[in-house]
Amino acid sequence: MSKTVNIGIIGAGRIGKVHAANIVSFVPEARLKAVADPVMPQDTRQWLATLGVPVIGTDPAVILNDAEIDAVLICSSTDTHAEFVIKAAQAGKHCFCEKPVDLTVARVNAAIKAAADAGVKFQVGFNRRFDHNFKKVRDTVLAGRLGDPHIIKITSRDPAPPPAEYVAVSGGIFLDMAIHDFDMARFQAGSEVVEVFATGACLVDPAIGKAGDIDTAIVTLKFANGALGVIDNSRKAAYGYDQRLEVFGSKGAAIAGNDLPTTVRIETEAGVASEKPLYFFLERYREAYIAEIKSFIDAIRTDAPVPVGGKDGLEGLIVALAAKKSLAEGRPVRISEIPRA
Amino acid sequence: MSKTVNIGIIGAGRIGKVHAANIVSFVPEARLKAVADPVMPQDTRQWLATLGVPVIGTDPAVILNDAEIDAVLICSSTDTHAEFVIKAAQAGKHCFCEKPVDLTVARVNAAIKAAADAGVKFQVGFNRRFDHNFKKVRDTVLAGRLGDPHIIKITSRDPAPPPAEYVAVSGGIFLDMAIHDFDMARFQAGSEVVEVFATGACLVDPAIGKAGDIDTAIVTLKFANGALGVIDNSRKAAYGYDQRLEVFGSKGAAIAGNDLPTTVRIETEAGVASEKPLYFFLERYREAYIAEIKSFIDAIRTDAPVPVGGKDGLEGLIVALAAKKSLAEGRPVRISEIPRA
Amino acid sequence: MSKTVNIGIIGAGRIGKVHAANIVSFVPEARLKAVADPVMPQDTRQWLATLGVPVIGTDPAVILNDAEIDAVLICSSTDTHAEFVIKAAQAGKHCFCEKPVDLTVARVNAAIKAAADAGVKFQVGFNRRFDHNFKKVRDTVLAGRLGDPHIIKITSRDPAPPPAEYVAVSGGIFLDMAIHDFDMARFQAGSEVVEVFATGACLVDPAIGKAGDIDTAIVTLKFANGALGVIDNSRKAAYGYDQRLEVFGSKGAAIAGNDLPTTVRIETEAGVASEKPLYFFLERYREAYIAEIKSFIDAIRTDAPVPVGGKDGLEGLIVALAAKKSLAEGRPVRISEIPRA
Amino acid sequence: MSKTVNIGIIGAGRIGKVHAANIVSFVPEARLKAVADPVMPQDTRQWLATLGVPVIGTDPAVILNDAEIDAVLICSSTDTHAEFVIKAAQAGKHCFCEKPVDLTVARVNAAIKAAADAGVKFQVGFNRRFDHNFKKVRDTVLAGRLGDPHIIKITSRDPAPPPAEYVAVSGGIFLDMAIHDFDMARFQAGSEVVEVFATGACLVDPAIGKAGDIDTAIVTLKFANGALGVIDNSRKAAYGYDQRLEVFGSKGAAIAGNDLPTTVRIETEAGVASEKPLYFFLERYREAYIAEIKSFIDAIRTDAPVPVGGKDGLEGLIVALAAKKSLAEGRPVRISEIPRA
Repeated sequence: MSKTVNIGIIGAGRIGKVHAANIVSFVPEARLKAVADPVMPQDTRQWLATLGVPVIGTDPAVILNDAEIDAVLICSSTDTHAEFVIKAAQAGKHCFCEKPVDLTVARVNAAIKAAADAGVKFQVGFNRRFDHNFKKVRDTVLAGRLGDPHIIKITSRDPAPPPAEYVAVSGGIFLDMAIHDFDMARFQAGSEVVEVFATGACLVDPAIGKAGDIDTAIVTLKFANGALGVIDNSRKAAYGYDQRLEVFGSKGAAIAGNDLPTTVRIETEAGVASEKPLYFFLERYREAYIAEIKSFIDAIRTDAPVPVGGKDGLEGLIVALAAKKSLAEGRPVRISEIPRA
Repeated sequence: MSKTVNIGIIGAGRIGKVHAANIVSFVPEARLKAVADPVMPQDTRQWLATLGVPVIGTDPAVILNDAEIDAVLICSSTDTHAEFVIKAAQAGKHCFCEKPVDLTVARVNAAIKAAADAGVKFQVGFNRRFDHNFKKVRDTVLAGRLGDPHIIKITSRDPAPPPAEYVAVSGGIFLDMAIHDFDMARFQAGSEVVEVFATGACLVDPAIGKAGDIDTAIVTLKFANGALGVIDNSRKAAYGYDQRLEVFGSKGAAIAGNDLPTTVRIETEAGVASEKPLYFFLERYREAYIAEIKSFIDAIRTDAPVPVGGKDGLEGLIVALAAKKSLAEGRPVRISEIPRA
Repeated sequence: MSKTVNIGIIGAGRIGKVHAANIVSFVPEARLKAVADPVMPQDTRQWLATLGVPVIGTDPAVILNDAEIDAVLICSSTDTHAEFVIKAAQAGKHCFCEKPVDLTVARVNAAIKAAADAGVKFQVGFNRRFDHNFKKVRDTVLAGRLGDPHIIKITSRDPAPPPAEYVAVSGGIFLDMAIHDFDMARFQAGSEVVEVFATGACLVDPAIGKAGDIDTAIVTLKFANGALGVIDNSRKAAYGYDQRLEVFGSKGAAIAGNDLPTTVRIETEAGVASEKPLYFFLERYREAYIAEIKSFIDAIRTDAPVPVGGKDGLEGLIVALAAKKSLAEGRPVRISEIPRA
Repeated sequence: MSKTVNIGIIGAGRIGKVHAANIVSFVPEARLKAVADPVMPQDTRQWLATLGVPVIGTDPAVILNDAEIDAVLICSSTDTHAEFVIKAAQAGKHCFCEKPVDLTVARVNAAIKAAADAGVKFQVGFNRRFDHNFKKVRDTVLAGRLGDPHIIKITSRDPAPPPAEYVAVSGGIFLDMAIHDFDMARFQAGSEVVEVFATGACLVDPAIGKAGDIDTAIVTLKFANGALGVIDNSRKAAYGYDQRLEVFGSKGAAIAGNDLPTTVRIETEAGVASEKPLYFFLERYREAYIAEIKSFIDAIRTDAPVPVGGKDGLEGLIVALAAKKSLAEGRPVRISEIPRA
């Protein structure tokens, strides 16, 4: 397929809008034909109109039933992801689904099966794989410069916690937040996780604890290839979004720091001041979101495998479920303990 | 004017294309109506068509005579800049002109006068003022955090020299390359240059010397407010585009380093390796070009003064001419020695 | 006591020599009276003579029986530490003992009791507390700038593994190497460890595995004050000694990087190169060893508590034993599971 | 000579004391026999006694006439340097003289001649050549990694200006302060200066201006090998001692930053803070002073040439005089304009 790819987006919240703007501005090979969201605020509607989106509606059917649309981006709430993947696949449309695909293994499996049965692409929104820093680390590993990976180390901290009511439905820190880190660890290790140990505490916001979740966590991983992994998470870093990565191997280490708004250093009698990290994911991963969507469109146009598929969505979920179980039971959990069906 | 600003671009070379793409992708308040270039290669024509530019031609008259066009971006060769500014101004169009406006004071004056007479905006393409790093330094100065500026220090080195034939018609390193740095120095000092001393050598490429130019220079400046300035230039930095700035004042310093593609540091037995600077101006100033054009469109829409005007183009030129004279005569040259008419 | 403190050193290996040289050069308030080592090589003897040490012998009794000697530095092999502490204390001498005090809780208790009974100082050689970087982090925590500590994060990697035969008698990676990190974690957290989970692998040298040990480890800690800790260890970092620390709290983070031999950055077409970390502990902790010994002498002269006492040696050991048990049993171990007597 | 080198120090001010302490602590091959200063405060006398210096007096004759003394360190006021070098040389003693040797060419020549006639070593105290950072840059140049040097760039700023009364007798900023930078530029360029242009202003302290000096300067240099040099000086950097160096060549650049007390970075909501540079020369060049004195002792013991000789003192002075003349006359000055006799 070398023609323009027609896109529909289901869900016009924060991330849906990011994809919409990126497609319009940066992906000349794609055309944003339609956006649908049951709750479509008037200002979003206007903004989409300004972008030149022809079809703007509240019913996803306008997308699913539009024969011209080649691919659907599913940016709705998590509990509807799997259902929309299945419907879109059955309508013969390629699917890009935000993470997590679902909070249950069964429904992720169903989504994967639907896409496979329909013979459509199914990409999962682990945008961080497309981050320039993390990609460079992975390329360095693949080039053999670090030798065998021994330790994968991830720091992932948000600038501010979500509202406790969101936490309650989010599936918890591992399924909602750390799932990105589990995917990154798998990506960098080039291997599957075999064991997880999670520990954590509620140190940031007692309301999160009341909602049954933790806000600070350390997760240790063992990979099939022998490497170890460690992730530290917090729901609140006072200085902003903290997204660092280190791969340590037999021949050396690659270390990715945060991106800063400028390189400026201000030196005065009071001390030396430099910039805080870019505030949150929209800033930090701005370019990564563009690269992610381009990769999806490219996979469609060249009929190549997607770079992050349904299996990645599934494996990330299983690690997250293992972490949750580990925390609950206070012991390391083998990945094989999590049912795959 | 709150309506969309219709734009024509004269000159579809490298920089013209940058502006064209930026307007289409990032400036929803503007519409790229026409692009004209006497030499319009077929692939450029096709690319512009893909961008959705309605009028693509070889005769600038298609722009100058188009009553719908509000503003013209002049991206043609330097020797035609002034003429096009004058014609566009006389046609009642706002003008954005790439630097240098011209190699002669008389013609820059004529362009300034034409714009003033016609009551149109006239912005000059000193894009570096819009660079995030340099802007942050300036903001730090303006906020008073550095006290009175004492030393403005600029390192500006290209990754590779231009062909010697280009050098021959470019006006030389000061008018072609360092003019950006003279503008930056004026911008950061918040004051006009009163004296210039330039020294230099041909160390990079003997062909540049044969063409009557130098490729390595150090220029010292004195400003009306008492501050000193120093610029070092080279046509060839083996490690890429080197664009650094430091403002040192009575209360401290602000230091801007180069932008890097990633933050990754690779540590091995052989040493610790980090990234080279972004290669050249298209990469380093990508965001600055966008901010620059947005500022021009904003000035038109809100009828505000342009942030970098004809006077800035003139003053930069005069400093460059003073540097040239200083080098030729081996002595410091007062700005007042350069005829302003 | 404001008079000069007379010192004897038992053990003239690597670390004994470091202390000897430091006392002579940097601690004018102390006098190195005697050094004894059952194996005293001729070149060591000569070197000590050059330093001006009056008594150089093979029998520790020359120190223990010398009434003029106020304090003893115990730098012999680990299995003799406790015995010498007890003998020195019984002889009324202040004791400085290298880490670990012993591999068993009982013998550490005996050493602590002997010192307490004799009313002498008993300092344990956790030199890293005196490192300028780590001390600055601790001071930042104490100043309240980071709020409550949430995560203590330590990277501690050696440049090269010890011989496997050493590993066999060392007590293993946790008692031999990570014990420093356990002490640092306690020091930074300002709280005691309550639970440990250790995971690890033999990835560096199979001979270490054959000797029953691991060479790569990740240890997760829970502290009484609610903070979490995580340590990653490797016996071999290709780029040298890697000693980093991060304390993350409710108000921010303090991050200590490695010390480098110079600040020089070399930028060429091949990339940007900076220095590797200082090679190993003698280089990295050169100043810390001096500060450590000064602190011991100061405590004696001013009759103040030592900054790192027998209890710190005990607690570090207990955490290390818990880590060992955790690794062996594949589960988190409560500190209370390790017998204290 | 492989025996211990007996040392006398003339001048027990700040720098004399640095050398005294360094010899006692770090140079076992040397013995500090005597220190003489016409003004010998009681506390200095006591401190020297504590160091174990046998002879402490007010008359330099106790050094010059002591047949056991092999070498003299001249740390007195600048106006007495040359005289003491001559006397010490005539007494057959090797000479180490603080910079500047003298403010006049004639007297430096006389000192050089006296040392040559007597066949003694004559080292000049350009301590910065022994700084780890600057030495690494030089080694990088010598290793050919930067190709031919094109630009030598030095930033040299003091944390606080000296009293105006000192300024009046100091010879001015170029002879007193920048002479270090001229030496560094020569050292790094590996070539002699042929032309100097100096500009400057009094921006820090009007009293310095009244004393006939400037406090802020930019000096441009041309070297015999074609390289260019640029130095910026200030008598007051609010953030401390600023000592940076960059050598830019045909194949790349080596850039030396300031040394910091720790590597700690503190990240909070308010921003990211790191350390200010080490405060002043005693802190920054602590190790360099040790290496400098060791190099002098080594040259004596192995009868090798000193690393920084009388000629270096002379050439530095001539560049400084050329800079002074350039500033006074507002024009570039050829080195050949400064009389060498």
